Amino acid sequence: MKNIAILGFGVVGCGVAEVIEMNKDRIAKRLGEELAVKKILDIREFPESPFAALVTTKKEEVFEDPDISVVVETIGGARIAYEYTKMALSAGKTVVTSNKELVSTHGVELMKIAHDNHCNYIFEAAVGGGIPIIRPMHRCLAGNKIERIAGIVNGTTNYILTQMAESGADFDAALKEAQSKGYAEANPSADIDGIDAQRKISILSTIALDGAYVDPTKLFTVGITSITTKDMEYAKEMNASIKLLAVFENKEEGAFAFVAPHLVSKDHPLACANDVFNAIMVTGNAVGDVMFYGQGAGKLATASAVVGDVMDAVEHQSRNAHVAEWYESESPVLSPIEEHVVSVLLRLPSSVSDDAIAEAFPEISCQPCVYEAEGEKAVILGKNGDLNEAKLAIGLESFDEILSVIRIF
Amino acid sequence: MKNIAILGFGVVGCGVAEVIEMNKDRIAKRLGEELAVKKILDIREFPESPFAALVTTKKEEVFEDPDISVVVETIGGARIAYEYTKMALSAGKTVVTSNKELVSTHGVELMKIAHDNHCNYIFEAAVGGGIPIIRPMHRCLAGNKIERIAGIVNGTTNYILTQMAESGADFDAALKEAQSKGYAEANPSADIDGIDAQRKISILSTIALDGAYVDPTKLFTVGITSITTKDMEYAKEMNASIKLLAVFENKEEGAFAFVAPHLVSKDHPLACANDVFNAIMVTGNAVGDVMFYGQGAGKLATASAVVGDVMDAVEHQSRNAHVAEWYESESPVLSPIEEHVVSVLLRLPSSVSDDAIAEAFPEISCQPCVYEAEGEKAVILGKNGDLNEAKLAIGLESFDEILSVIRIF
Repeated sequence: MKNIAILGFGVVGCGVAEVIEMNKDRIAKRLGEELAVKKILDIREFPESPFAALVTTKKEEVFEDPDISVVVETIGGARIAYEYTKMALSAGKTVVTSNKELVSTHGVELMKIAHDNHCNYIFEAAVGGGIPIIRPMHRCLAGNKIERIAGIVNGTTNYILTQMAESGADFDAALKEAQSKGYAEANPSADIDGIDAQRKISILSTIALDGAYVDPTKLFTVGITSITTKDMEYAKEMNASIKLLAVFENKEEGAFAFVAPHLVSKDHPLACANDVFNAIMVTGNAVGDVMFYGQGAGKLATASAVVGDVMDAVEHQSRNAHVAEWYESESPVLSPIEEHVVSVLLRLPSSVSDDAIAEAFPEISCQPCVYEAEGEKAVILGKNGDLNEAKLAIGLESFDEILSVIRIF
Repeated sequence: MKNIAILGFGVVGCGVAEVIEMNKDRIAKRLGEELAVKKILDIREFPESPFAALVTTKKEEVFEDPDISVVVETIGGARIAYEYTKMALSAGKTVVTSNKELVSTHGVELMKIAHDNHCNYIFEAAVGGGIPIIRPMHRCLAGNKIERIAGIVNGTTNYILTQMAESGADFDAALKEAQSKGYAEANPSADIDGIDAQRKISILSTIALDGAYVDPTKLFTVGITSITTKDMEYAKEMNASIKLLAVFENKEEGAFAFVAPHLVSKDHPLACANDVFNAIMVTGNAVGDVMFYGQGAGKLATASAVVGDVMDAVEHQSRNAHVAEWYESESPVLSPIEEHVVSVLLRLPSSVSDDAIAEAFPEISCQPCVYEAEGEKAVILGKNGDLNEAKLAIGLESFDEILSVIRIF
């Protein structure tokens, strides 16, 4: 019998207990012994839960029990989860988590504590929910230099954008719809402002850079709140979908990472991820493009990844980190985003002349007008299709007549 | 310095040497020591190759060198590769391979030899080329019961089907085109008759069944040679693509595996895999649908997976199998395919009456006619859309007036 504890009995924590119960025979066969949840630490009571008897408010029942060697942290946030994770790791217990905020904020320190205490801090579920992505990148793609990651890593925003594209709803209506279905929080900022995606691309970028830590708070990030029904119409006419992409690129001129809405051609595999689905395309210098697709959130899907990590931890009790050790690099890890070449679709008032655009963006190739209607026009700047490649400052918001700006993938 | 040997210096073997050279700095940083190809065993000489000096015809230089702990087998086939793999494993050397024929034919025995000699037999590259699939299934999805696998696992046939759909070419013309581009062999049987796909689904099915061996030669398999331009037209009208799918299903009534052409709705993520790309959708009872997409063949892509395995082998010298041990089950692993419910599109001469169809397939719901033109008609049998679910023997070829039969995914 192998005992674990769950910290925080919310949606994912409860899902972990359920998946372990649901598949207990398979898991026992694989591990050669039964896997059991011994304790669930939470300040709340859950009298209706089939796991009610396991719930405790006393943290020493988890951290001081030598019988518990693996701890699942599904508290979320970076305060109590941070304290408890440090406590568990310091006691030599491997911690498995889905907490992207904590991993992306304190990963370097927590991995060091794990290392010093001969245990592991593992987090397959922190990006892409149930989709295998972190271990495959670290292990299966180990022989590659990772040149690019482009991912739809936030299901809430993808649902909102899909609704806007399919039903013609505006942003506010689509957000309300997402909230009514439980896909968006009452305070949706972390999703719609791109913060969640920012944390996830910071984790993937750090892995792509063999552990050189990428601070999420330093990343250029634009959410989806400014996307309008008009943008959706333009996208449709261009046979494209608007997707919030989290992007990492490692080029000769430097590495870049950012989060922003993008036009993605409907012929591109990433465009097949609709509703709450996630899809992450990873480009390696040997493997080319590989894509991972699935449910990026949800109770059982996320729990699936957590339970996979728990089983790995049980099978490999000693040090067997599933990512290269993270560290704070002394030199800057990412290049300034202004040096990154992208192409964009700009929506402007018709009154802005082509000359004004040329003046605002010197040295940039510009197809003067893609569409023009109802007092607006759209132009494409930068490399795209027949346009010449051109350097384009990504901080286009400074040009104050822009109605919207969407990067082109 | 960590030394390895490559057996068989064909396309993939050469790719492995190239990837190790191309990414040597990254690999050394990750492993903490340099990874070097010490010997390449082949009966041929390669005077033009930058690796010419490493080539030897003497097998003892590989098998008796204690300095070589990992051996890459890229000979292919199940004769010499089989002998050499046994030799290497018996000498305690971990063998990494892309050889689906050998794995699917002798996997049980080879894994046992590896086990007995405290080394590993690993084969991420055997399915999906560079796409991470075997390790993610075993490790990341460990907490799931695998309920279904549906994969486009053969790039050659996918290229031919894509060409037929896009250019209107018939099968023979599309095959010639594939051959001229190097995507199909001079003798293309293993690809177009579904044998390659059969081997790959046998490997994935065995993994899904926690090691209970699925013999590829027992699987119901239909290739793509009978697909006509008419089938392509019907598919287009139904907003579907024709894809050669390798399918595994584990249902209450039993487990099934087979290979056959399928109609796949263009809205389904699998339909986004065109040309030589592969895509494999895995459905777990916790994670739901996850899909893995990428180049399923090719020199560097396949080598990417081999090198990932080699690095894993170097980092984990002791037993660390990347699949559960395979075994021959005493009871049948798969149920008879006749018990499996599918729906199909049948193309028939117009002269076959609805009554004749009803008589040939009693107790099967049948939408009498989907299309009718030029002396032919197409009917859908079985569960699909509004049709009731019905049991349908998959061996429809026995009904001798059928012009073509395509399963519906």
